[in-house]
Amino acid sequence: MNSKLTLAYNGADFCGWQVQLHKEMGEQRTVQGELERAVSVLEGEHRTVHGAGRTDAGVHAEAQVASVRVERAFTTHKLRAALNGNLPPDVRVIEVQEVADSFHARFSATGKTYRYRIFNAPFVSPFLVGRALTEMRALDVERMKGAAQAFVGRHDWTAFSSAQSDVKDRVRCVTQVEVGEYWSAEAHGRVIEITVSAEGFLRYMVRSITGTLLEIGRGEIAANQIREALRTGNRALAGATAPAHGLTLVKVHYDSSAG
Amino acid sequence: MNSKLTLAYNGADFCGWQVQLHKEMGEQRTVQGELERAVSVLEGEHRTVHGAGRTDAGVHAEAQVASVRVERAFTTHKLRAALNGNLPPDVRVIEVQEVADSFHARFSATGKTYRYRIFNAPFVSPFLVGRALTEMRALDVERMKGAAQAFVGRHDWTAFSSAQSDVKDRVRCVTQVEVGEYWSAEAHGRVIEITVSAEGFLRYMVRSITGTLLEIGRGEIAANQIREALRTGNRALAGATAPAHGLTLVKVHYDSSAG
Repeated sequence: MNSKLTLAYNGADFCGWQVQLHKEMGEQRTVQGELERAVSVLEGEHRTVHGAGRTDAGVHAEAQVASVRVERAFTTHKLRAALNGNLPPDVRVIEVQEVADSFHARFSATGKTYRYRIFNAPFVSPFLVGRALTEMRALDVERMKGAAQAFVGRHDWTAFSSAQSDVKDRVRCVTQVEVGEYWSAEAHGRVIEITVSAEGFLRYMVRSITGTLLEIGRGEIAANQIREALRTGNRALAGATAPAHGLTLVKVHYDSSAG
Repeated sequence: MNSKLTLAYNGADFCGWQVQLHKEMGEQRTVQGELERAVSVLEGEHRTVHGAGRTDAGVHAEAQVASVRVERAFTTHKLRAALNGNLPPDVRVIEVQEVADSFHARFSATGKTYRYRIFNAPFVSPFLVGRALTEMRALDVERMKGAAQAFVGRHDWTAFSSAQSDVKDRVRCVTQVEVGEYWSAEAHGRVIEITVSAEGFLRYMVRSITGTLLEIGRGEIAANQIREALRTGNRALAGATAPAHGLTLVKVHYDSSAG
């Protein structure tokens, strides 16, 4: 059975999604590694799990999607329970669906949505620490909302991605950049959420968009600097990359026919 | 300056509020202990911090209140920042207010509100683990809502408190028991909240009320068993005490004149 897994994880204690072997450090703890271990225990041999997005160390997921072939005969509910029984509590299988053999979590995806959370208060919240970036300085959210629209569209994202990446084509189509806010009674402060949807992302792209919007919100740079950075590809015009722990993968998009 | 501190803490790694000395184990990590250490660093000598509610190990607070005398001249904002600078991230001072010398966090309080959170889904949420009780079985929330009203009023709570306690007067006035629910998109499941307000509480009272409402929600006992338990004081009629980690102290009530 080709299975589509919807996954939630708290990224704090993971070295990201992807299994990596470091010469000096040996195998790191990754979400893919934990899942492959759990599936392989059920199957009696190694199974590769394909994830839709290779989230970085510290990045969370509310609905990451992975695909894996499972030969043992399980109902989808039983498979979910069996996998969760073999997983640590910081990663959970939310849903299992049986999908066509052609389905691949990454190659079938038509887009993804990430959300960056900022806790804007004069103190860290014990309930949001590790889940949201704390910004103690004042933020002009209306200014951030207005500026965010400049990101929407088909652009070359060189100024908003990692210089180390060897990706050649840096053009991506961003379909949504929304800045929202609400008061958290639980945390006694304002939470600002930056939601970004695109067909594809470059590494650090959402965190770089967020860092730029934060500098605009603090009044440090002008909103029109976004267009200039997109046009020129000059990284010096973009804001600092915001830290990983505020970022969450919230949705992977598929055509309805792909499951 | 007599100071009223509003505090938030994640109770997971605390042995409760109150400083205790165990003969075998030495000093435990407590919220009061961390606060007294932070105040004493600023003051250069030991200061006792009085808390409104002595929360048990694992119990959280969104707005615990404590009072302490601070002799060094600080503005309230400076004192908050100085205390937070000396506290670990799982406990935070949300607000500092200057209050009359007569104010005492516990003796001036007129009541408290606790909230018990239940995550009702077929899996643990990586984002709610340690913050809410996970109940995987079906719960009839309408039945729980209806039954909850039987708790409101002035009753002897013997059936809903610790048998070990040496408290003699077990009569307390409960002013509110509300059962609410909402869908958490983040956690992919239903959250049920039981909010209990009273002038005073006995130990394990909210957790015992919750355990009883859970048994009613699962259809294991009849709703009218609550009145019978309150009338007779028979602990066998009450539900099992729900675990500490689902419980949060959300508000301490004072007359407006008390700060």
